[in-house]
Parts: sequence; structure tokens; C-alpha cells
Amino acid sequence: MERRSTDPRPAGADAPTADAADIGDIDDTVEGVGELATLARILPRLPLGDDTLLGPGDDAAVVSAPDGRFVVTTDLMVHGPDFRRAWSTPRDLGWKAAASNLSDVAAMGARPTALVVALAVPGDTSVAELEAFADGLREGCALMAPGAGVVGGDLSVSPTFTVAVTAFGDLEGRVPVRRDGARPGDVVAVSGALGRSARGLDLLFGLGVDHEGRPDAGRAAALRARDPDVGWHLAPTPPVADGRSAAIAGATAMLDLSDGLALDAGRVARGSGVVVDLTSAALGDDVRVALSGGEDHSLLATFPPGVPLPGGFRAVGTVRDLAGGAPRVTLDGSDLGEAGGWDPYRLWGGGQG
Amino acid sequence: MERRSTDPRPAGADAPTADAADIGDIDDTVEGVGELATLARILPRLPLGDDTLLGPGDDAAVVSAPDGRFVVTTDLMVHGPDFRRAWSTPRDLGWKAAASNLSDVAAMGARPTALVVALAVPGDTSVAELEAFADGLREGCALMAPGAGVVGGDLSVSPTFTVAVTAFGDLEGRVPVRRDGARPGDVVAVSGALGRSARGLDLLFGLGVDHEGRPDAGRAAALRARDPDVGWHLAPTPPVADGRSAAIAGATAMLDLSDGLALDAGRVARGSGVVVDLTSAALGDDVRVALSGGEDHSLLATFPPGVPLPGGFRAVGTVRDLAGGAPRVTLDGSDLGEAGGWDPYRLWGGGQG
Repeated sequence: MERRSTDPRPAGADAPTADAADIGDIDDTVEGVGELATLARILPRLPLGDDTLLGPGDDAAVVSAPDGRFVVTTDLMVHGPDFRRAWSTPRDLGWKAAASNLSDVAAMGARPTALVVALAVPGDTSVAELEAFADGLREGCALMAPGAGVVGGDLSVSPTFTVAVTAFGDLEGRVPVRRDGARPGDVVAVSGALGRSARGLDLLFGLGVDHEGRPDAGRAAALRARDPDVGWHLAPTPPVADGRSAAIAGATAMLDLSDGLALDAGRVARGSGVVVDLTSAALGDDVRVALSGGEDHSLLATFPPGVPLPGGFRAVGTVRDLAGGAPRVTLDGSDLGEAGGWDPYRLWGGGQG
Repeated sequence: MERRSTDPRPAGADAPTADAADIGDIDDTVEGVGELATLARILPRLPLGDDTLLGPGDDAAVVSAPDGRFVVTTDLMVHGPDFRRAWSTPRDLGWKAAASNLSDVAAMGARPTALVVALAVPGDTSVAELEAFADGLREGCALMAPGAGVVGGDLSVSPTFTVAVTAFGDLEGRVPVRRDGARPGDVVAVSGALGRSARGLDLLFGLGVDHEGRPDAGRAAALRARDPDVGWHLAPTPPVADGRSAAIAGATAMLDLSDGLALDAGRVARGSGVVVDLTSAALGDDVRVALSGGEDHSLLATFPPGVPLPGGFRAVGTVRDLAGGAPRVTLDGSDLGEAGGWDPYRLWGGGQG
């Protein structure tokens, strides 16, 4: 995986990168070599995992569930609504599919154990692209959830490139950390980036397009080399291990920040029947982006007062009682109003890419 | 769910049927009411299940795994390659998504416990269609795997209607029944239909199309009313409970018949290093269709000689040693040759439908 100095591709510090071995058999397509031969090239690239009792190849896999329960989450990524192929490399897609699912497992306080991956791709998709997807998935798992394995999957032909991942975790005997346990007096804390993914996407929407507004691979690659937030958006690295640490430290509520801090904090407020008061001074230089930016897959958790915050968590606010009002999110004690939602398509009038 | 005598829809004995309540709010579309409102209408229709410790609504669900392991399988259904909407009702799709995944869990000898369901659908899909999909899923689970619940899911917009189901099962302390345990002298047995699904699909390909060869909803409905194999193809009912029964009875190998008896028996032969000798007299009137017809999702299992066959299993052959030859499938002692594979598209030159 050493990068040669003549490598023309962007360095994207946070993103997985392709190596020369991936371009063998570049002309093979999924419909050309068939499903079985494609799977035979993908499967060896996937991690088997420490909790896999029976891996791919039979009607179903068997995974260890040491405490007699398992955590499960599923997430789709669809070409067009969820990604543009001019911007995301296949390796990015594998990495991001791992990241977005592993962070949901982490947000319950669980240790990720395994994933299954179903891919529906156009028949003319090159097998090399799917190998790169598998590489991104493997590298993402290795970094974010070492020991987690890919235990099964499915491969179909579809006009629309679609990725469906289901991920599993082990609670190690603890109660799952839900959204409804925050109590007045708790510290509100975040681990991971706030707004980096949205900032990267804004750059792509603004500058990663051609003169007609269509996603452009060359411009996106140049942007990515210049600004690490672009690579972060395309292949984020959420703090997966901090989910388990938060649960061990006694987190009272936790969730994955998919839709932005303001919206997701609102879910904790409503679930727990409390006010979540955020502190603007803790939200960095661009408070608006920190509040509204989605898809960082960072972790928002609440901790009893006085608990040392684990891992990468830092305090960003306080849980307060309703004082007669409705559950809501406030900033420095004032209502946030409509500042909340994050819509990744709000700037988007371009093609599919 | 009583059918009125004026109901114009086909009776399809084996298929789930729609009732009048489903056509309320028929004009609502997924993009019109949004993801959250759509989910709010779908979720109450889905079964929670006996093994669900935490259902939909948080970052992830929690499912019981009583023996410290869980069985997992995932399967995609894509509009075009896997189904035609002129032939399959939304309720059929929900039912078939349950059937094809539950049969994979059963084929390991496990008791199905739970499913997660991810749907990617065009924005103009009516919410009523997704409600009918949920009804089919619920009714399929209730009949084939009572007690199994839908614990989570995802909903996205896509130009291509895509269903991704992942299903789970509990082995109740038994070893999983794999494909590699058949031994010379074992009885080869099948539970469930052989060739009904293929016969139904042949009828649809031949007669369920308009004069230009495109799938036609009216003709398909008329065919379905006349021949129950058509409804069986669109919404099959595999013998899911017989998977657990086979494991308890001591099955040495088992799999789900997705690709036809000849091909799937070949998997047992190669996995176990044996000859699987089938008996033509046990394969019904149309031996060719019984050998080659896929998508019945029946169960093929091998049992030690003398074991009373459980549930719906009947003997269809004998496992023999290689006698110096290669692992293979024979019919009445003679090589099957190329009779094996089933290609559901071999007659297919029509549109997507």
C-alpha cells in the first residue's frame, strides 16, 4: 500500500487509497465473468472476523453472540440520492458503508462484531471496482472496528448501483444505550467531527462540478487533494470505539450524528423529555455548520455530572429540565428555532454523476 | 380479511391477497408524505416478534440470541432481474422477500427469530403499495415463521425498486446443518414443491404478456386465477418449520432449493465428496421440471439410513460413495450430464414490466 511519488491520484489524508494491484483484469465486468467468478474475486478481500463461527458459502452464516443478544442495524446507499460516482471512488463507497453502519452499532454502546453486504450493480460494472469496494470495506473495518468480519452477502444486477449493509454488535452484558435516558444535570458531549462532512459536501457542490453543474471527477479529485474535509465527506472515520467506551463510562443516552447536531440533539430531548442546552463556545468557529451539518457519524452522548469523559468526548452542553416547556434544543439558553435540519440536497440542481 | 364475492381480484390460493382497507390514501406517495410519515404508516403493520428486545426507533435494534450464536442470511430482490411489477403485487413482494430469506435460515436447521428490511423505491411509489408490502411480509412471517419479528429497516428513494432483507435464526444449541455432511448410505429427501415455481413462471412468460411480449397485469391475474402454480411462483410458501425438524431428526446436510434440484444436489455432492443418486420415480410426472426448476425454496436434506423422515420430507434418492469418480448427481444411477442448470430468463425477451 506504499504510495509511489508518481501516483497521480489525490492524497486525501482521511480516505482509503487504491494501489496498483487493483487494476489487473480491468476489462472484466460483472456480467462478463458472472456472479460466481465475481464473488470469488471479492470474498478473499473481506475480513472473516473474530466472531465468525461459519462464514460465506452456505445458506447462511453463523456469528457469535457472547451475551445472548445481538445489536443489528441496516442502511442503504443508493447512487444518486446518496452518492455520485464522479466524486466517490468504489473504495470510498466500501469505506463509507462500513462507517455509517458501524457508527450505528457503536451508538448503542456495542462492540461491532460482523457485517453482511448486499450489492446491486449495473452489469457493466467492472470487477476491479467491486474489488476496490471490498478493499474499502476491509480497510474501514480494520481501522474502525478491528476484529469485525464480513460474514455474508448477495450480489445482483440492477440499473442503479445500490449498497445494503447490515451490521451487528455485542453489548458485552451491558444495557443498550438508548436515546431516552438523558437526565437534567447530565453533561452533553460529542466525540468526532462536527460539520466537516457538510463542509466537504458544500465544496463539492460548489466546485466539484463542470461548467454545466454536473459532478466532475477531475475537479473533485483536485478539491480533495487541497482540502481534507472533502475526503472526510467521501470516506469519514467516525469514532466507533468511543461508543463502547461511553457505555462503560455510564452514558445515559447516545446516538449517531447522521442529520446534524441540532436535529439529533432534538431526538434525545424528545426521547428523554428534557431540554438539551448546547454551548456555542464549544462548537468551534462555524457554529451554524456544527449545528446543522450531517453525515459526520460522530457520537452524541449524555453523561452523569462528574463522570470523566471517555475517549474523544468533549462537553458541548448540559441537559436541563423542561421547566414547564416542551422538550427542545437551546443554544446558550435561547431557543434554536428553525436552525435545525440539514438537507444535503439544498444546493443541488445538478445531474446524477 | 374475508373476501367479498364481488371482489374482482384473482383468488390465487397460495398467495396473499389485498383487502379494502389498503386503498385508503391511495394518492399519497413516498416523496409526497416523506420518509418519516411513510415509516409511521408501515411500521405498525410489521410484527415485533418474540425475540425482539428493542425494536425499531433507535440507532439499532437488539435481538435475543438464546444459545450465544445467531444465524444470518441476506438476499436482494431487484425490479427487472428478480420481479416484474405487472405480475407481482406489492403484497407478493413482501411475502416472497420473507419466504426466500426464511428458507435460508431454515436450511441451516435454525428457528427464524427476526428480519431487517431495507427498501429503495421510486419517489412516486404510493404509500399504500408499501403498506401492502408490509402486509405481505407480516402475513408471510405469521404463516412460515410465527414469532419472528421485523426489528428494523431503512427506506430510501431510488429509480429501481429494490428490496434487501436480512434474516436471523437461533440454532437452539444444535450444530448448523451445512452442505458438506452427507455420507454414503444416507437417504436424500425433499420437503416442499419441486418445479411448481418454474412451471408458474413458464406460464407467465408464455401467456402473462401482451401481444408485444411485455408483462401484462390483466393477463397475469387471469392466469393466476386459473392455475395455482402462478401464485406459487409469485408468493411461494416454503416449508420453513421443516428445517428445524430436519436438524432435530439428525440431518447430515441441508440446503434451500433456489436453483433447482439438480444444481443444488450438485452442491451437496461436491461439498460432501459423494454421489447424490436421485430416483426418477420419486420426482413426479415431469422429471425435467422437478430437476431443473428453481425458486421453490424447498429443502433438500440427507438423513442417516433408518431415520424416520420428519415433517413433509419424502425420499428422492440415496447418497453413494464416489467409487473412484468425481462428486456428481446421478438419476437412477446414470450421469445427469448437462441437465442441471435453471435459468429463469431463458425464455425471456420482453420488457421490464
